[in-house]
Amino acid sequence: MLTEAATQRTLAHPERPEIRLHEVLAALADPVRLQIVRRLALAAGELACSTFDLPVTKSTTTHHFRVLRESGVIRQTYRGTAKMNLLREAALAELFPGLLPSVLAAAAAEEARGTAG
Amino acid sequence: MLTEAATQRTLAHPERPEIRLHEVLAALADPVRLQIVRRLALAAGELACSTFDLPVTKSTTTHHFRVLRESGVIRQTYRGTAKMNLLREAALAELFPGLLPSVLAAAAAEEARGTAG
Repeated sequence: MLTEAATQRTLAHPERPEIRLHEVLAALADPVRLQIVRRLALAAGELACSTFDLPVTKSTTTHHFRVLRESGVIRQTYRGTAKMNLLREAALAELFPGLLPSVLAAAAAEEARGTAG
Repeated sequence: MLTEAATQRTLAHPERPEIRLHEVLAALADPVRLQIVRRLALAAGELACSTFDLPVTKSTTTHHFRVLRESGVIRQTYRGTAKMNLLREAALAELFPGLLPSVLAAAAAEEARGTAG
């Protein structure tokens, strides 16, 4: 019997022109999702979902990744049984220049002040 | 009998150190609220709630202004019977440098592409 991961091989993503600012902002407006995005930005490449150690349940983690994918912030791809995540930096930079860097800088500044979350 | 506006003269605002990035992003993640913020940015000063012609009911408008105020994006002050709104640009610029300008630019870019909302 195939697992869901093995049968459902592709995941829905908005094409670049379909990405909407308010959906991107809503995706970034959650502390856990912002933590995921910051880690992907630092990684500068793909990371498997399983490499994220988040303070939420597995199903909540899956939900957060889905919100990020459906808003256009990340691209998710299956590689074998692993679901890999990549920040769509080029798409976001073209559509909303400077937005993602300023959000990442703001998150770092907030963390440095010790007031995040 | 005094109206609510006349009795409840001050409105709760977060102090600058209490403003949180995820709450600011959530406040900006709504198209109507972003429209309010863009207009306030253009006005570069106070605007009364009554000067906004928004595609929502009066109570929804009040809700949107409250979300903006409680997140720290705007300051609301009663002047007589008018509720005046001011963008907290200095606070946001100090806490999250470049964030508000990049969101405003992103909103303008999206509008220029004709894909807003």
